[in-house]
Amino acid sequence: MNSEKIKISIIGATGYVGAELVKGFVNHPYAEIIHLTSQSFAGKKYSEIYPVFKGVCDVTLEEGDYVQIAKDSDLVITALPHGVSSKTVPVLLENGTRVIDHSGDFRYKNLATYEKSYKLEHPHPELLKEAVYGLPEFYREELRTARLVANPGCYPTCSLIALAPFLTQGLIKADSIIINAVSGVSGAGRKSDLAYAFCETDEAFKPYGAVGHRHTTEIAEQCGFLSEKSGREVVKAVTFTPHLAPFKRGMLASIYVKPDESFADVSSGKINEVYQEFYKNETFVRVLEGKALPDVKSVYGSNYINVNGMYDPETDMIKLFSAQDNLGKGAALQAIQAANCMFGLPEGTGLKNVVRGV
Amino acid sequence: MNSEKIKISIIGATGYVGAELVKGFVNHPYAEIIHLTSQSFAGKKYSEIYPVFKGVCDVTLEEGDYVQIAKDSDLVITALPHGVSSKTVPVLLENGTRVIDHSGDFRYKNLATYEKSYKLEHPHPELLKEAVYGLPEFYREELRTARLVANPGCYPTCSLIALAPFLTQGLIKADSIIINAVSGVSGAGRKSDLAYAFCETDEAFKPYGAVGHRHTTEIAEQCGFLSEKSGREVVKAVTFTPHLAPFKRGMLASIYVKPDESFADVSSGKINEVYQEFYKNETFVRVLEGKALPDVKSVYGSNYINVNGMYDPETDMIKLFSAQDNLGKGAALQAIQAANCMFGLPEGTGLKNVVRGV
Amino acid sequence: MNSEKIKISIIGATGYVGAELVKGFVNHPYAEIIHLTSQSFAGKKYSEIYPVFKGVCDVTLEEGDYVQIAKDSDLVITALPHGVSSKTVPVLLENGTRVIDHSGDFRYKNLATYEKSYKLEHPHPELLKEAVYGLPEFYREELRTARLVANPGCYPTCSLIALAPFLTQGLIKADSIIINAVSGVSGAGRKSDLAYAFCETDEAFKPYGAVGHRHTTEIAEQCGFLSEKSGREVVKAVTFTPHLAPFKRGMLASIYVKPDESFADVSSGKINEVYQEFYKNETFVRVLEGKALPDVKSVYGSNYINVNGMYDPETDMIKLFSAQDNLGKGAALQAIQAANCMFGLPEGTGLKNVVRGV
Amino acid sequence: MNSEKIKISIIGATGYVGAELVKGFVNHPYAEIIHLTSQSFAGKKYSEIYPVFKGVCDVTLEEGDYVQIAKDSDLVITALPHGVSSKTVPVLLENGTRVIDHSGDFRYKNLATYEKSYKLEHPHPELLKEAVYGLPEFYREELRTARLVANPGCYPTCSLIALAPFLTQGLIKADSIIINAVSGVSGAGRKSDLAYAFCETDEAFKPYGAVGHRHTTEIAEQCGFLSEKSGREVVKAVTFTPHLAPFKRGMLASIYVKPDESFADVSSGKINEVYQEFYKNETFVRVLEGKALPDVKSVYGSNYINVNGMYDPETDMIKLFSAQDNLGKGAALQAIQAANCMFGLPEGTGLKNVVRGV
Repeated sequence: MNSEKIKISIIGATGYVGAELVKGFVNHPYAEIIHLTSQSFAGKKYSEIYPVFKGVCDVTLEEGDYVQIAKDSDLVITALPHGVSSKTVPVLLENGTRVIDHSGDFRYKNLATYEKSYKLEHPHPELLKEAVYGLPEFYREELRTARLVANPGCYPTCSLIALAPFLTQGLIKADSIIINAVSGVSGAGRKSDLAYAFCETDEAFKPYGAVGHRHTTEIAEQCGFLSEKSGREVVKAVTFTPHLAPFKRGMLASIYVKPDESFADVSSGKINEVYQEFYKNETFVRVLEGKALPDVKSVYGSNYINVNGMYDPETDMIKLFSAQDNLGKGAALQAIQAANCMFGLPEGTGLKNVVRGV
Repeated sequence: MNSEKIKISIIGATGYVGAELVKGFVNHPYAEIIHLTSQSFAGKKYSEIYPVFKGVCDVTLEEGDYVQIAKDSDLVITALPHGVSSKTVPVLLENGTRVIDHSGDFRYKNLATYEKSYKLEHPHPELLKEAVYGLPEFYREELRTARLVANPGCYPTCSLIALAPFLTQGLIKADSIIINAVSGVSGAGRKSDLAYAFCETDEAFKPYGAVGHRHTTEIAEQCGFLSEKSGREVVKAVTFTPHLAPFKRGMLASIYVKPDESFADVSSGKINEVYQEFYKNETFVRVLEGKALPDVKSVYGSNYINVNGMYDPETDMIKLFSAQDNLGKGAALQAIQAANCMFGLPEGTGLKNVVRGV
Repeated sequence: MNSEKIKISIIGATGYVGAELVKGFVNHPYAEIIHLTSQSFAGKKYSEIYPVFKGVCDVTLEEGDYVQIAKDSDLVITALPHGVSSKTVPVLLENGTRVIDHSGDFRYKNLATYEKSYKLEHPHPELLKEAVYGLPEFYREELRTARLVANPGCYPTCSLIALAPFLTQGLIKADSIIINAVSGVSGAGRKSDLAYAFCETDEAFKPYGAVGHRHTTEIAEQCGFLSEKSGREVVKAVTFTPHLAPFKRGMLASIYVKPDESFADVSSGKINEVYQEFYKNETFVRVLEGKALPDVKSVYGSNYINVNGMYDPETDMIKLFSAQDNLGKGAALQAIQAANCMFGLPEGTGLKNVVRGV
Repeated sequence: MNSEKIKISIIGATGYVGAELVKGFVNHPYAEIIHLTSQSFAGKKYSEIYPVFKGVCDVTLEEGDYVQIAKDSDLVITALPHGVSSKTVPVLLENGTRVIDHSGDFRYKNLATYEKSYKLEHPHPELLKEAVYGLPEFYREELRTARLVANPGCYPTCSLIALAPFLTQGLIKADSIIINAVSGVSGAGRKSDLAYAFCETDEAFKPYGAVGHRHTTEIAEQCGFLSEKSGREVVKAVTFTPHLAPFKRGMLASIYVKPDESFADVSSGKINEVYQEFYKNETFVRVLEGKALPDVKSVYGSNYINVNGMYDPETDMIKLFSAQDNLGKGAALQAIQAANCMFGLPEGTGLKNVVRGV
């Protein structure tokens, strides 16, 4: 790492993901924020939108000249809606910057799956092949030289980290994956919407998008890639149900899978061992000990993801659990982890702050 | 119904279930509270423990002479820990009262399953046969003359109401039941325990008892009885995982099951039709319309339980959802519904109050 | 009371006040709902807007023909914005119904104060004189025959109930009143507004409208009327600051006043005695005992208001506290209490349900 | 600052203040944690008590040999109950370390006030004179060489920062101070106590300790010192009422004071100017602009304190508002700010992390 700081710009900086990115880069020793853009709040100081940043990040929001931004920046992070990213990112790339995109527009390798899931035609399908799926735990080599990184969805990150050790080793049945996941309210974004009003959300809990949520196919495609490594059956589809819970940040996946016959002497202890071994060199995947189970509180505000699993002999079922902060490992902080990979920094740079969630 | 009020006593009246019972009977036009007991707070007025009841229920708590209470009461409701109920209830019965018990002590027909699940020897196994499982939707005939009613567990109620139409008609595979359930914090009871302190519970979410939670076997036994009616495969075990969520009251079950081959043209619409038909005469089971999904907010403070389901053709999976108030239909108000059955009253008597959960 | 039910219509029925009114009247033994109106949701069933009411109130919302509604109804309750009520209420009155209005439009006797506070010209100032301020504790005689009732604001109700015993007896200095009040989020109404989004409101707490909040002059005018009865100094103005707290329902006023020289041997005990004596015949004002202090939890979902006070000898300051449900005694349930007065029913009719706020 | 890190030990490290200290020092570039002690959890890893720290702080908790700890540490921070600190701190000082104490035991200059407020005899009154009150904004010179620092109470910090500009310049009447303050639940500490259980605290709000709360005299003594600087009337007592609100962290003070005749042309604008001028060089006191009012959300997890004020001409009353994180500026992070002063570091060292409170 050299002494010069990485020049970072964020397009769409005033959503909750944007705010978490700003928080992260303000605390990052080798990065500096160059441009922050916002369609709605251009001309205002960032700390007028988020008063918590007063004195910490008072950068003035710009409407955004993407050509200039690309030229000024080593890395541009886009937090734009899908369908908008697919048009904006190519402009940035053409002007010589590297990009991490938060939308679903570059997460798929299979164009048809993307177009079916998002009900959109992709204007730049050639970029799907180039884009690196930004899960550093599985793609860190590719990230080093990536020009375009597709930051994974929050639910996919939580699901894939929990499933990967078992998929890559063929320890579970490829057609048995059921993911029951729960997200905090910030996952819905920063917007005026009665559905997310305090009085409507507090003391509420509900499933949504129970069939056909977009993250289903993103999870399935990546599960496919992971299971290919096992040389056994390849995952083609998964059952996935998201739920909305009355907390601001956090995500928990409770996953039900059938052990493969090849999983010798499956037990809760063995499941834990598989995790411990698989993630022993990872900075941000924390395998809990014994029968301790993941809790969203224990990852609050951080880039950590906690995992553990159990085996139920009564029904021959494996239960896997993972917890992350949906804005942290599930979005903005994972993007910073990927950025660290892209610029040759230790992955934990600027990310070891732990936020007590008292 | 005659003009004389049903004389009700509650043993263990100061827990959250007790408070919900008191609330319910205070509002009940044909019941009156005779004795309220508490080991910890005997001698105090009920409204000193729950100030919200000041002027509404100022009954003085007694330590409790069970013989006298039985003699004074038409119905005694026990909200005692398991292992205590099994010793107390027989005394009450012997002294001529009818009883609704909230513990797990009389919920099982199979003694061995009880003793394994609760790790206790049962002092009065002969009562297991007599006890009626207090789900009015399935056992209302038996309730009319029941001397002893075992009020179902909260998770079992939520699970069984969701599953029953499909189990009794053999529409789902008996060995495929996965129940992912979420409870509000009041389910843990009223106690001084750091685990349920505000700062530890707010903005937290976690699974617990992930293998071997006691309600697993209670659900499985009742699923067995329901599936027997179908003349097809009988349920022997279920996969069940409870979670703790940061709201005070409410419970949601998200259930994953495989359709049986006999479920012709399974679809989301068909699932809804099955529910509509099965529960068309029920007062408290509300089948939502179309793709509306149950939410704990919509049953807050009430005896209602909302259900609906969907079919995922990608994975050939049925998803069933049910939401109830864990203290309402999941405990105290369901006991009042059962009491109405026991005393020949319309089931909705005193229970149609809807509490807006704004 | 006769056997015929009071015919009630609610104009603006889909806000939180409307929902609390519907809840209240559904539970009321001598009232029936005739019309419910909504500009935004006309044509939908009430239970589509509030699913909790499914099976309880499935009335279809109407856009509203005010002439017809007036003719069909014994009582119309308007939950409309100020400036709209002042035009709508006269139409209702002219067509022969009685009205309880929830806006600020008919709460003032002094026209100039209204027009300055609301920055509006009043189209029917003649009605200000006729309108009865709907605090049954002080105006129950006038309510019996009232044609038009102005339901008090939430903050005024909470403040006036706490202050009245001392004002009417001249026990406090008229120019010393400081009211620091806190409201739950439902006080802001049911709307899509980022300021009241879950992620913006949870774990937040702030003052607002710190100078010039409209309720300031409403409180001051009524304090003036109450203090006139003492034959001593008359209140002309009060210091008032509202705050927004992260709970859905509830309101607490913490009031600081200087004792008048005439308050002999002022002490915490004496303050409690004044309250006990003054409110000894009231159904809904609960004077707490000893040093117990009001808490919003203890009035949740009810029409009760809890009060108590203390004296600080170090600074010769009286502290008065009152807690109510801002939608209950602070709005809709107080309107039902007033309606009971208007129709000669016991004030507690349909209002003694206690909602446990576990 | 030299390259060697400051050796820090924390006595009583497992409470919420302890956890915030650990978080702070883990992120501090020039400090390292040497010993963490706990009576209840000695032998366990810190991350077993707070799983969020797994991989971040896995230090093993010790019961604590205070002599050894003192010898090993440049600075010992004690988070002990009052009455325990007064006996422990002298042992630490005698063994050559510097100390920041979080209890009330060394905050007073007037022994009698301490003994009356805490109902304890002080075993080492000679230390009261030596101890520096750890508000860097007022005592930073004294902190540089301090051997013993008494970290201020949370309510006093919030109150004094708001009042200081007006007290030191004699702009308000010394006998008119009324402080209405609200704290999050973490202020009650980490303990098993039904009063702070989720179900008892959520959707609740109440005053407590309404007369005679210990912080009253701490505030009054420091107000006295500040007002002495004005050469005008000296504060002798203040009216103070704390309240408990349903959020985990945060504190807001709403303060009512009468302007002194010397406050020329008092207005909201003038009040803001006084703040801007007085705190223009402070890192952590943020004076809001215009009519923006402090909110606990905007200081969440930080060492910042936000202030602003308004003037109400109707009642000639000044309202001052301040918001801080009760565990941040109100406790642990302020202690780190003081430690920075003690060791010659810029005050903001390690403290500029902003925690987004989404």
